[in-house]
Amino acid sequence: MTKTRLEAFSDGVIAILITIMVLELRVPHGVDFAALTPLVPVFLTYVLSFVFLGIYWNNHHHMFHAVEHVSGGILWANLHLLFWLSLVPFVTGWMGENHFAPLPTAVYGVVLLCAAIAFTILAYTIVRHQGPNSKLAAAFGRDYKGKLSIVFYAIAIAAAFFNKWISDGLYVLVALMWLVPDRRIERRLNH
Amino acid sequence: MTKTRLEAFSDGVIAILITIMVLELRVPHGVDFAALTPLVPVFLTYVLSFVFLGIYWNNHHHMFHAVEHVSGGILWANLHLLFWLSLVPFVTGWMGENHFAPLPTAVYGVVLLCAAIAFTILAYTIVRHQGPNSKLAAAFGRDYKGKLSIVFYAIAIAAAFFNKWISDGLYVLVALMWLVPDRRIERRLNH
Amino acid sequence: MTKTRLEAFSDGVIAILITIMVLELRVPHGVDFAALTPLVPVFLTYVLSFVFLGIYWNNHHHMFHAVEHVSGGILWANLHLLFWLSLVPFVTGWMGENHFAPLPTAVYGVVLLCAAIAFTILAYTIVRHQGPNSKLAAAFGRDYKGKLSIVFYAIAIAAAFFNKWISDGLYVLVALMWLVPDRRIERRLNH
Amino acid sequence: MTKTRLEAFSDGVIAILITIMVLELRVPHGVDFAALTPLVPVFLTYVLSFVFLGIYWNNHHHMFHAVEHVSGGILWANLHLLFWLSLVPFVTGWMGENHFAPLPTAVYGVVLLCAAIAFTILAYTIVRHQGPNSKLAAAFGRDYKGKLSIVFYAIAIAAAFFNKWISDGLYVLVALMWLVPDRRIERRLNH
Repeated sequence: MTKTRLEAFSDGVIAILITIMVLELRVPHGVDFAALTPLVPVFLTYVLSFVFLGIYWNNHHHMFHAVEHVSGGILWANLHLLFWLSLVPFVTGWMGENHFAPLPTAVYGVVLLCAAIAFTILAYTIVRHQGPNSKLAAAFGRDYKGKLSIVFYAIAIAAAFFNKWISDGLYVLVALMWLVPDRRIERRLNH
Repeated sequence: MTKTRLEAFSDGVIAILITIMVLELRVPHGVDFAALTPLVPVFLTYVLSFVFLGIYWNNHHHMFHAVEHVSGGILWANLHLLFWLSLVPFVTGWMGENHFAPLPTAVYGVVLLCAAIAFTILAYTIVRHQGPNSKLAAAFGRDYKGKLSIVFYAIAIAAAFFNKWISDGLYVLVALMWLVPDRRIERRLNH
Repeated sequence: MTKTRLEAFSDGVIAILITIMVLELRVPHGVDFAALTPLVPVFLTYVLSFVFLGIYWNNHHHMFHAVEHVSGGILWANLHLLFWLSLVPFVTGWMGENHFAPLPTAVYGVVLLCAAIAFTILAYTIVRHQGPNSKLAAAFGRDYKGKLSIVFYAIAIAAAFFNKWISDGLYVLVALMWLVPDRRIERRLNH
Repeated sequence: MTKTRLEAFSDGVIAILITIMVLELRVPHGVDFAALTPLVPVFLTYVLSFVFLGIYWNNHHHMFHAVEHVSGGILWANLHLLFWLSLVPFVTGWMGENHFAPLPTAVYGVVLLCAAIAFTILAYTIVRHQGPNSKLAAAFGRDYKGKLSIVFYAIAIAAAFFNKWISDGLYVLVALMWLVPDRRIERRLNH
């Protein structure tokens, strides 16, 4: 079974998610700067979520570049990842409209955490399908960055109830950490 | 005529449907757990419909994998299936927001039933186009799972007016039954 | 310049249009049959527009099947067609929610008329690019069906202010006329 | 790394943006011409933004036609462009619903300006990746049209606070300037 449709479907879902988030930026009624002010936190959350979805698309792109055939298990592990990503617009809107209140900030982290776990499950499903000696298995190695992200998300969820700036800072930190494309895979595949 | 555009178009429609359903999860105004409570049934219905659309995408993927050329009849049988799937977000929102009330629960089943019938029509249209000795015809065989789903949906529609838990249980049962990818097709094609 | 992206982009736009129309089917507040009644005209208009967009996708599919290279003119003629199609959800909602009132019914026809003209322009642009001896030029021939549709739309627009049933009947008639896939092109290309 | 998915993803995002803008054309409650009047400025802004997104899609299409391999930098420069384009529906709705008031008109220009800069960054990223002797580098040359657009946008932003017609006129002028497909690239690539 070829991977073309899986990639096309995932591209479609992520493209739609990244785009419908902007619908949460409701057109304001006023026409002065004051009308834009309440949109600032919504806009900042939008930027953060746009970057996260961009990172997922990027890493998905890199990971499937190393895949040739997909199994039923890979199809469902991929849908499982898309499910958690599909909740990103909802938690983005909730966190943004409530100026980063504790519970929305924590729930935002829960969705990111579940998406990170789903990505890890997808990676392991692919590696298991391709065998432990595959290029992808070597490329993932110990997956420090993936594990660190999961730890940071967990801390951010707990911190949301004490100091939301810690949580927001951690979300930004994880995003920056991943903005560098996954050179592990790129490097290995080019050898 | 090649199947590429039919697959791309179907992928696009299903990707959009699976994503706009999440728009029914309206961002709540409160910021505590109480604000999330009314969303629980909407969320559960969303999960169920996400799984159903995932199953349709999966089976569509498997079925067209065995197709080489498409006819005008196949194009329209496919659009007919997409029509019923396009009503899934509507019935999902209606059932979820009304806590699985009888009529919305029954109408949810009607849409699933029509989609299942449309999928069967599409399968027969393809088989007729490819001939009774094709791999796909052999793979479909007597199509026990498809026929059983249609029976379960019919029972669920009637049961909705007596005991909605029976209906909801049947919907979950059909979903679980299909979560296993259609090995009939996979197996035959690999021979 | 290849046609792949033009097809993919058009598929994307039509897939989104055919799907967001369903958002006009607002989830009703009631849970009985009475709650569904006001949705009936919206639903019927939705079915009609779904069929029209399906026809355009189908004919687009057939037409570009005969195209190998696209020019800047073809790109813009295609975007011009997509522009008129993009107004279909708007006029569908307006006509459906107002129970086929005269002006919305006429405006619905205006958008269909402009889309039909845009399709004709696109066809001529392609034929001019491919030369008068191309298969597509032969396949289009005198384009009776296209010209007849334009005449029917014009009559339907005028009739909307006298008797809306004539307009609605003509819209359904044009849809039925096109539901048969464009065998002219199919036949010629297979020789 | 191949460019297929980058193109497909960008096509998806632009197709969705060009389509969800039409959702700002809210279905009016009245059924006479008076009900359509307040939609006229929204409609005109929609047409303008549709043309701008069409131009970006067109130029994106032309530019990537000359690209074979994409780097991580190109992926992110492309996402950066898509980010600014994703704000087009928001500023379109704001400007249209407020009858081209000064601040919305200026902000519309800011988003177009940022998108133009992002396109330039993307072009330079690709040229740097392909080398200064590549066909694309020659095709871009001194990029008069790109630089002129940026100057026009900057003037339009400032002019919005004095005379909005100057701004609107400049937006239309830039659109017309680009409606001619980028023959520089087409011409060079055909040699």
